Amino acid sequence: MGKVICAGLGPGDPDLISVRADRAIRGARQIAYFRKKGRAGQARRIVSDMLAAGVTEHAMEYPVTTEIPFASPEYNRLLAAFYDDWTTRLAALAATDDIVVLCEGDPLFYGSFMHLHTRLQGLAEVEVIPGIPGMTGCWNVVGRPMTWGDDAMTVLMGTLPEPDLTRHIAATDAVVVMKTGRNLPKIARAIASAGRMDDAWLVERGTMPNQRVTPLAQADLEACPYFATVLVHGNGRRPQINPLADAEAAE
Amino acid sequence: MGKVICAGLGPGDPDLISVRADRAIRGARQIAYFRKKGRAGQARRIVSDMLAAGVTEHAMEYPVTTEIPFASPEYNRLLAAFYDDWTTRLAALAATDDIVVLCEGDPLFYGSFMHLHTRLQGLAEVEVIPGIPGMTGCWNVVGRPMTWGDDAMTVLMGTLPEPDLTRHIAATDAVVVMKTGRNLPKIARAIASAGRMDDAWLVERGTMPNQRVTPLAQADLEACPYFATVLVHGNGRRPQINPLADAEAAE
Repeated sequence: MGKVICAGLGPGDPDLISVRADRAIRGARQIAYFRKKGRAGQARRIVSDMLAAGVTEHAMEYPVTTEIPFASPEYNRLLAAFYDDWTTRLAALAATDDIVVLCEGDPLFYGSFMHLHTRLQGLAEVEVIPGIPGMTGCWNVVGRPMTWGDDAMTVLMGTLPEPDLTRHIAATDAVVVMKTGRNLPKIARAIASAGRMDDAWLVERGTMPNQRVTPLAQADLEACPYFATVLVHGNGRRPQINPLADAEAAE
Repeated sequence: MGKVICAGLGPGDPDLISVRADRAIRGARQIAYFRKKGRAGQARRIVSDMLAAGVTEHAMEYPVTTEIPFASPEYNRLLAAFYDDWTTRLAALAATDDIVVLCEGDPLFYGSFMHLHTRLQGLAEVEVIPGIPGMTGCWNVVGRPMTWGDDAMTVLMGTLPEPDLTRHIAATDAVVVMKTGRNLPKIARAIASAGRMDDAWLVERGTMPNQRVTPLAQADLEACPYFATVLVHGNGRRPQINPLADAEAAE
């Protein structure tokens, strides 16, 4: 009897994988990972120097990505069938051996694995190993504190409508926007409307060898990879009256 | 010539430290960590089985925690002098050897190290190793996807005034509230006002041996440790019209 182990890979640098996930990946006899058809796959690339000789690889190739509209019934039908199919296959593999599913960032934070996680309940034992979220890698690349004191931080998807983005950004202190790509011009307009353009950064391929950090005001908005992240740092806001100290944390 | 290396420890389980931070901690000849006077210190506890023989330890003991009001000039003066003093000491140590500063979670996300990070600029080389944020450990302990689709997620400090908490919670999908402790009754009222009580969890000491997960509606609001985290999961919200697929991420 094996189990499905989903290993969070963190932001991209293999050295930022957790000790537990590193051990699971290096010891794996069976691995699986998502990728777009015809691509190597980002998850597979991250572990390229870590796999044991003779490992069996299962590339879970999305049946469709941007070819048909995301909101169409056909898109939903194809994706659901894809996740159903891989649920059956992973559960069958787990009947005899552990299978390690690779997942960028943290698996339970906007990850595709969650569609399998839900379906696998009752069919196989599932273990999830947390990872450093991609956004955490990105704000470390900028090298400035992301949040201080009583800052609120809001994480947004660039796919949201512009008025929603503007409203959220105006109401918070620190901001992370993921799923950028072709949404970047819209995201930049929302950040400018909220008066935060001077504090915004664009991080592309954070923690990876070809990473790039650009003030958003100077970025090329029309040539942005999907995995780029926009960050607006907090400012260390503190409430006026507060009987509790940060230092209480030192228990 | 050495440097100040701040190693993110992650949520508490030593097995969830990154490979890079694990190597830095095990190889350290000098370590430093924050703690409250008279306590062992959570950071020091996490690494207790990892330190090399003969390591020199520097306990950075807060001069004050909850004895005087957080907002008082005296509190600010004492803390500033404390950070100034340790900045000088760490810079002096780094002149001849690396010194590893231990920091729970991710160092640039609501961490005390940021006060040293700012002050050390120009005085010593500083390297920060990211960690899995405490909140990420907590939502993995609950074992359900935290955010899906186009969910917005907001991170809040329990020290915020109740109207601010309520307003933020009502405007978002997924919620994380840190710095709970004696703020928990106020946080629970804000979550109830926003209509999310049935979706809320209290996670105490997440990923640590004595962790506890309780539906917030059933929790004892008057006996909550400062390090407990309140979570409200997202619901996989998707916009009505959207030409971009999640699967585009599979580059």
